[in-house]
Amino acid sequence: MTGRDRVNPSAVRKASRIGKWDWEADVVVVGYGAAGACTAIEAAEAGTEVLLLERASGGGGTSANAGGVIYMGGGTPVQKACGFDDTPDEMYKFLMAAVGPDPDEAKIRIFCDASVAHYHWLVEHGVPFKMSFSPEPGMEALTDDCLNYTGGEDAYPFDRIAKPAPRGHKPQYPAAAGGFLMQKLVAAAERSGTRMECDTRCETLVVDDARQVVGVVAWQDKQERLVRARRGVILTAGGFTMNPTMVARHVPLIAQCSNKIGTDGDDGRAIRMAMGAGADVIHMDAAEVALPITPPRRLMRGILVNRVGQRFINEDTYFGRVGQEGLFRQGGHVYLIVDSAVYERNLAGMEASYVEESVAALEESMGLPPGSLQATMEHYNRFAAQGEDPLFHKMPTLLQPLTSAPYAAIDCRPDKVAWATFTLGGLHTQPTGEVLNPDGETIPGLYAAGRTTCGICSWGYVSGMSLGDGTFFGRKAGRSAARASKV
Amino acid sequence: MTGRDRVNPSAVRKASRIGKWDWEADVVVVGYGAAGACTAIEAAEAGTEVLLLERASGGGGTSANAGGVIYMGGGTPVQKACGFDDTPDEMYKFLMAAVGPDPDEAKIRIFCDASVAHYHWLVEHGVPFKMSFSPEPGMEALTDDCLNYTGGEDAYPFDRIAKPAPRGHKPQYPAAAGGFLMQKLVAAAERSGTRMECDTRCETLVVDDARQVVGVVAWQDKQERLVRARRGVILTAGGFTMNPTMVARHVPLIAQCSNKIGTDGDDGRAIRMAMGAGADVIHMDAAEVALPITPPRRLMRGILVNRVGQRFINEDTYFGRVGQEGLFRQGGHVYLIVDSAVYERNLAGMEASYVEESVAALEESMGLPPGSLQATMEHYNRFAAQGEDPLFHKMPTLLQPLTSAPYAAIDCRPDKVAWATFTLGGLHTQPTGEVLNPDGETIPGLYAAGRTTCGICSWGYVSGMSLGDGTFFGRKAGRSAARASKV
Repeated sequence: MTGRDRVNPSAVRKASRIGKWDWEADVVVVGYGAAGACTAIEAAEAGTEVLLLERASGGGGTSANAGGVIYMGGGTPVQKACGFDDTPDEMYKFLMAAVGPDPDEAKIRIFCDASVAHYHWLVEHGVPFKMSFSPEPGMEALTDDCLNYTGGEDAYPFDRIAKPAPRGHKPQYPAAAGGFLMQKLVAAAERSGTRMECDTRCETLVVDDARQVVGVVAWQDKQERLVRARRGVILTAGGFTMNPTMVARHVPLIAQCSNKIGTDGDDGRAIRMAMGAGADVIHMDAAEVALPITPPRRLMRGILVNRVGQRFINEDTYFGRVGQEGLFRQGGHVYLIVDSAVYERNLAGMEASYVEESVAALEESMGLPPGSLQATMEHYNRFAAQGEDPLFHKMPTLLQPLTSAPYAAIDCRPDKVAWATFTLGGLHTQPTGEVLNPDGETIPGLYAAGRTTCGICSWGYVSGMSLGDGTFFGRKAGRSAARASKV
Repeated sequence: MTGRDRVNPSAVRKASRIGKWDWEADVVVVGYGAAGACTAIEAAEAGTEVLLLERASGGGGTSANAGGVIYMGGGTPVQKACGFDDTPDEMYKFLMAAVGPDPDEAKIRIFCDASVAHYHWLVEHGVPFKMSFSPEPGMEALTDDCLNYTGGEDAYPFDRIAKPAPRGHKPQYPAAAGGFLMQKLVAAAERSGTRMECDTRCETLVVDDARQVVGVVAWQDKQERLVRARRGVILTAGGFTMNPTMVARHVPLIAQCSNKIGTDGDDGRAIRMAMGAGADVIHMDAAEVALPITPPRRLMRGILVNRVGQRFINEDTYFGRVGQEGLFRQGGHVYLIVDSAVYERNLAGMEASYVEESVAALEESMGLPPGSLQATMEHYNRFAAQGEDPLFHKMPTLLQPLTSAPYAAIDCRPDKVAWATFTLGGLHTQPTGEVLNPDGETIPGLYAAGRTTCGICSWGYVSGMSLGDGTFFGRKAGRSAARASKV
């Protein structure tokens, strides 16, 4: 992991050893994805001198490869235009239930209360949203439509916990919109007066004798650049999805997911830099895991079963919940069972692995325990015929008995289907973006946002939350650092 | 969490600020449980001057409250005397399968290869073992018998992965033997010439300008004691089970387990001390969780079901596997279903919560989905009558159809039954006991063992492994520090 590195990130540099700084700014931002851009914009608009350092040749990062969905709600103009009532409290209730088991109440509260304001801030900074709804849930529309359900808000159990509302907002662009979003945010960052240094890899933090972070050591054009941060350093440099050593150490099960979402920059370097300065990390074992069965959602008229032929979740929920449950609780043994009335190829092109004229024969070909799938299907069909799913409460519109031979199983195991994943764990931060040490104290001069931190999703995930909490708490971090005293 | 502390543990002290040391030793050991005692003995027997610091008034720690089982195998004298063939390779195969998903191969290899030697070392240091087997698996015998199955070695799937052998070794004492074991280890530590300072709380580490750990700051008699460690500091001060803030931050689900196994010392202080000196932590989300249904094992002729009436595990496995599966994967919703032929009160005194004349009535009283438990029982009974369990492969001796009314359910949810738990995550160490930083480098002068570290059980747990790897790797750490150069 570190062999190619000139300097190990956790080896902090002492300020007392630095004679002359090469560059200086009030606020130094490390990493130029969506979180970094919003951080820089806020800090610059607060009147401070901002220097943004990016190891790639331009802004973008993993954000530019994303679908572009931003999780916002509580009554945004798009929600209202599309006829959805939402309030900060309903959004709060949903997130408290969906992202735990230990949701960060303070972060969620502020995120929900200020979500409409965040929407307007994005619009003011050049990000357009169309006043339209896309009915296919789970991921961004492939049209320029904006709003959709991206967390299972309208499915069990959340439909009983909070009033359902779609909160995934995609910028107006006729495809995956991450690149488009980043174009707009980069343009706004440039307008803000932020100074950018790209092709510049940050190597380690600089701390003074009082353990305050006062700068970074960077590497550009084969030269070390000592960068002084008068007010603070903000780390917004991604997670550790692309670092196989850290993945193996902290969240080994995702190694088998072949669709790792990230760029080379997601190597955990910023997390290790901060740990060298005393930072705590939380939920390093957590990851987003998505099993791309939907769209189309109507394929969820089939049933998902595990290695012993049991159902384990309501199939109509968010595919990220299916993925987390499937990988972490069912060991990746997931099969989608359909009959000829339900079967179709999905967007990901998944095809039937087993096709048989009877459920008994299907069970046998799949190597499931005798009688297991038959018992599951018998129970499911009996109640589905009445529009009921007493086990997992799938929505009635997707309940229909599976009785049209032939029957098929789509083998969804990670060696057959490309499950998507990225890490969720990282630095422990305050809602202000201040980074905490293991004793729960802030580390002076150090801030972070985005995937470098453990954000709102302390375990459970919702699509749109990486860009959602990255942009939101990036702004918070930028403002916090801008307000800090100069050192 | 830290309000009562005079010094936050992660706030390391700089050696340059220390004028005069109060105490000195070659090796300073922090914490006097089983790991600390073995660490001190090894370091002292290697000819170095050892100082052991303990915050309580004497040696013991959580080890003294334990059952006393030590996981050892590969052909110990007790195994041989009781007629069990075992080899280091079979032990290795079992542990590689049982403690993952990401077993530490290097640690497991050395632990298995040197396990018989470790047995002899314990005997030579005064720990007696009786040459006898106790047939009731899972926890220590309540007699003075020694050997039993403590990890599900003889149950599915491990019985097919490695040749089953019992490896839990309890010292010869007619009850739980943790206190007895600690008496013997304390006596051996005293004989070794180790200097002990009890009622002495270690507050933080001392590091020099090269980031080497060179001592500790301790607190005794309301005075600060600056303790120099010429060769190294070894942290053996327990986990963080008793620190509600750290539990909430890292492994929130265990908060609902009312039987938290530990002493006040298990507050994670040593982990935070080490993090202040740059240490990495791994698997902070992992915990032993035991659901004390057995003994007696014959109660496992019943079936365990989840909130939707499905079986989820072979009931004859180790109760720590049932507990981890039950809490982390089934949300704590666990019920033991029995009929009148199987029912009896278990050792923990668990009683039937629901009793009905039919399975349908039982299902309804329990509030399970209609038809769910009935389908599960029908399938189970059909195959049990043939001596088979196609779903989970429970051993034939425990398979019998549950057909004798009345039927009963023992509600095992954590608010009804005291699940036992302790944390497994902690410092990332080498097999030598050297502590690693987030870049995978050793931190000079810093060693650790026992629950302060993430030991062999990086997720899955086996009874006897806390004392097993604590004593084993405690010895390794003691030897490593004793061999280090003086600073």
